[in-house]
Amino acid sequence: MTDSALARWERRTAGVLAAASLLFLASYAVLVLGPGLPGAVRDLCLAVTCAAWALFAADYVVRRRLSGQRWPRFVRTHWLDTLVLLLPLLRPVRIVQAYERVKRRHGRPRFALHARVMLYAGVSTLLLGFAASLAVYQQERGAPGATIQTFGDSVWWACTTVSSVGYGDMAPVTPVGRLVAVGLMGCGLALLGAVVGSFSSWLLQVFAREDENGERPPGSSPGAFDGKG
Amino acid sequence: MTDSALARWERRTAGVLAAASLLFLASYAVLVLGPGLPGAVRDLCLAVTCAAWALFAADYVVRRRLSGQRWPRFVRTHWLDTLVLLLPLLRPVRIVQAYERVKRRHGRPRFALHARVMLYAGVSTLLLGFAASLAVYQQERGAPGATIQTFGDSVWWACTTVSSVGYGDMAPVTPVGRLVAVGLMGCGLALLGAVVGSFSSWLLQVFAREDENGERPPGSSPGAFDGKG
Amino acid sequence: MTDSALARWERRTAGVLAAASLLFLASYAVLVLGPGLPGAVRDLCLAVTCAAWALFAADYVVRRRLSGQRWPRFVRTHWLDTLVLLLPLLRPVRIVQAYERVKRRHGRPRFALHARVMLYAGVSTLLLGFAASLAVYQQERGAPGATIQTFGDSVWWACTTVSSVGYGDMAPVTPVGRLVAVGLMGCGLALLGAVVGSFSSWLLQVFAREDENGERPPGSSPGAFDGKG
Amino acid sequence: MTDSALARWERRTAGVLAAASLLFLASYAVLVLGPGLPGAVRDLCLAVTCAAWALFAADYVVRRRLSGQRWPRFVRTHWLDTLVLLLPLLRPVRIVQAYERVKRRHGRPRFALHARVMLYAGVSTLLLGFAASLAVYQQERGAPGATIQTFGDSVWWACTTVSSVGYGDMAPVTPVGRLVAVGLMGCGLALLGAVVGSFSSWLLQVFAREDENGERPPGSSPGAFDGKG
Repeated sequence: MTDSALARWERRTAGVLAAASLLFLASYAVLVLGPGLPGAVRDLCLAVTCAAWALFAADYVVRRRLSGQRWPRFVRTHWLDTLVLLLPLLRPVRIVQAYERVKRRHGRPRFALHARVMLYAGVSTLLLGFAASLAVYQQERGAPGATIQTFGDSVWWACTTVSSVGYGDMAPVTPVGRLVAVGLMGCGLALLGAVVGSFSSWLLQVFAREDENGERPPGSSPGAFDGKG
Repeated sequence: MTDSALARWERRTAGVLAAASLLFLASYAVLVLGPGLPGAVRDLCLAVTCAAWALFAADYVVRRRLSGQRWPRFVRTHWLDTLVLLLPLLRPVRIVQAYERVKRRHGRPRFALHARVMLYAGVSTLLLGFAASLAVYQQERGAPGATIQTFGDSVWWACTTVSSVGYGDMAPVTPVGRLVAVGLMGCGLALLGAVVGSFSSWLLQVFAREDENGERPPGSSPGAFDGKG
Repeated sequence: MTDSALARWERRTAGVLAAASLLFLASYAVLVLGPGLPGAVRDLCLAVTCAAWALFAADYVVRRRLSGQRWPRFVRTHWLDTLVLLLPLLRPVRIVQAYERVKRRHGRPRFALHARVMLYAGVSTLLLGFAASLAVYQQERGAPGATIQTFGDSVWWACTTVSSVGYGDMAPVTPVGRLVAVGLMGCGLALLGAVVGSFSSWLLQVFAREDENGERPPGSSPGAFDGKG
Repeated sequence: MTDSALARWERRTAGVLAAASLLFLASYAVLVLGPGLPGAVRDLCLAVTCAAWALFAADYVVRRRLSGQRWPRFVRTHWLDTLVLLLPLLRPVRIVQAYERVKRRHGRPRFALHARVMLYAGVSTLLLGFAASLAVYQQERGAPGATIQTFGDSVWWACTTVSSVGYGDMAPVTPVGRLVAVGLMGCGLALLGAVVGSFSSWLLQVFAREDENGERPPGSSPGAFDGKG
């Protein structure tokens, strides 16, 4: 019963929270990237950022009440939610989930599991990379001896990090920037795991099907290389 | 019926398009690598490049008509074709596919799936690496502060990038060069996925066969390490 | 019989040895990081370090006797124990194992295999990364031309190494520091193997379950992306 | 019949060729690393190097005759042998294979497939890394602007490359050195594939066994983390 109330709450608020998290990311980006903007615009962005965060906090409190759990237990069992509350830049990742849920409710056919894993991994990496670029740029901008000078540098650095190439022509030098970088490295490892894991399990599925049929079903595996979507 | 017309068209044009894409790559390479060539040669190469691209565009238009789909839907469902039309340097990847198709039509035995995946991955990586080297070299050649000075440097940089080693002794500094680099990093991730996925699924197949037989079939698994082809 | 005596010994000493290994790491850290501490504190830390090591050596000797094996054979069959005895910084890795054993004895439910593999990999990486940072910092501190100057640099270097990003803004220059680095690179490879292996086998399990049920069991796979613990 | 004659030849010559390949590596190492040795020692090493190579060539010719194939076909079907003949530094990799064969003939129990794959991958990586270090050191020694100055530098560079960390504090600058580096990067990718593939297939086997038994067999999976050999 409580679980169902919680589920209903989550279903109803998913759209609002997704919009709020995009607004949060956008207004934070404007704050970081536009230091020369007129004061009114900056104040508006700051207000939007704070309002979005207040919304997240309210949602967190309501969910705790609906779950019927005490605070210490709720914080422990919902540790990822707690983390996302403290680092709201991670929140847009949940949009993929909300989108998926909307699609399912409307009864539309879902992607295959491989495609879904790749979609999650791709969108999460894009959003986290963008958020990390913003955070690192904000930290490094004024730091002495920093190699990351512009936002373009920061995006380039994020790409080399998340693909685990790591040229090293640019690297954060501030403690907070490096903390963000370590998080992004972990994200890169997870992305690699998703790419490789999807690929090898897809191969194994094709093998299993081949073994069953004796012959490869025509057009099933080449289709994956075909580029006809 | 329309699908069959489309399939017939694709079968007939595969050879011509493969030749055109190789010509495109070759003439583009001459244009990029030979700035000191006589004007007539350069004009010829430019003409070949443009003619090949026109051929690709014509093929795209004809395929749209044969598919019986409207433009917006066709662009969406054939997004990879659209991308390849806009970035024709990626086109040679389709040669592997055409070669495979010719071989199948002639009834020759096909490679095992592992070998095919590795072949696709290897040839695609070679062609994409070469195309990326050309594109990055063209961008970086005159750029101030560029570390990639010669085409040899560019090829070396592409190798370090696609293997995700990333020494960083050379790295693109222009925005377009960096965009190409990000694409190549993604290609490196996919290559890694193909190598690892093939390997782990091959291992699992061998395990499954061992479990069935109780004993390992003599000469089956060592053969893979044997170097006798 | 001898095996059971050995097992009883290991069960009884697990807690003490785990505590000793943490003490060893802590006192070694104080010795390395606090060169300006008063002599008495440093002497105490040195004493703790040596006592912990003596404890490990005694445990090794007792285990040899209980196993009933001769020295050469024992050293060969317990080569990992021998290595850990010679490089006691690696010892904290065994804490995960001890913790697991305690939990099992108390009949508490164990984690799923995926979670356990990730837990082992994560904790081992953390401990080994910390130990490697300490060892490299101690080696590089005074070396001419060293890029790793502070302990923070050393931790940052360890993170870039273990994730195989390798910016190269910092790298050890002393022979011993480089030896430690090579060990950490191997650890990074193993971590990657654990992440990717867990992921791909988890995917394959989900596929197998889907195939059995015809339909995906509701809430089983999205739960993994759900962030609700 | 011819195949059996070939097999007999390979069985008989395996030991001699393995010894010759180690001698080749050792004498080549002395030639590269000891430029200040007396002339007589260097002449001896050169003679050993050439004699070993002559042995490899003779073996190649005899194998062609015993196989009963014509030259073009033999070169194509034994392309890996041909490559190893042209790049004899790669030859020691075959020692693992010879060792395995000897062990099998003596009826000793073989390693599990996982362990064998890791053993192959580990020994091959060690030998190829050593050979690449030698070759790169020889190329880079006198090159202007080279960052790899000593053999120690070369070994350190090989380690960072094969683990795909790639700090970039040292990198080859000569064309031949870079060619060797690209080969080593490919080797690193293959090593990664072996590590990850073994790990994920081992995990999947454990899962399958758990599913069959309902319960995890006591001491089977923790043993892998146990460090008791």
